[in-house]
Amino acid sequence: MISNTPTPPYYAVIFSSVRTADNEGYAETDALMNELALQQDGFLGMEYASSEIGITISYWSDVEAIKRWKDNLDHQKAQREGQKRWYSQYKVRIAKVERDYDFLK
Amino acid sequence: MISNTPTPPYYAVIFSSVRTADNEGYAETDALMNELALQQDGFLGMEYASSEIGITISYWSDVEAIKRWKDNLDHQKAQREGQKRWYSQYKVRIAKVERDYDFLK
Repeated sequence: MISNTPTPPYYAVIFSSVRTADNEGYAETDALMNELALQQDGFLGMEYASSEIGITISYWSDVEAIKRWKDNLDHQKAQREGQKRWYSQYKVRIAKVERDYDFLK
Repeated sequence: MISNTPTPPYYAVIFSSVRTADNEGYAETDALMNELALQQDGFLGMEYASSEIGITISYWSDVEAIKRWKDNLDHQKAQREGQKRWYSQYKVRIAKVERDYDFLK
């Protein structure tokens, strides 16, 4: 679903990833992290799609909220597990959304 | 493929979309637009994934490059066709990438 984010400015964390063949524990951790992110102060929404690469974009009110989520202990554990097991490559981009517009039929 | 973008700052255009059932002409126009974007000054890369929603992120050197691409006549025609046929909803976010980091196994 497309996130119903507020009027800019706000922040986007773009997580582009390539998965390994190892799926053990992935779905459970992914679901748990989504649930946990939802509960963070400053969380605004999340969009996800997956083909050859996976793209997860989470939206946040400010960089402090992003930093708190990055430092969250459960999330840190998931990040370590992700590097060990689930991802062969990823790139994280922190970007300030300056402008947005919608089309709805 | 994950785009090998330069050191920030640079810009990301996040295009999140929901498709209609109408596929007529979509693949051809999509391929043509990708090819055309590649040729634009200031184009840095593109990432794409699709599940329930589609996410296309194009990366650009600056906002002027984004504006030139938005105003490109062939692209404008594709945008009109997209609104008429292929998309029931989309959201475009223009964001300045301030920071990025990589993981590679």
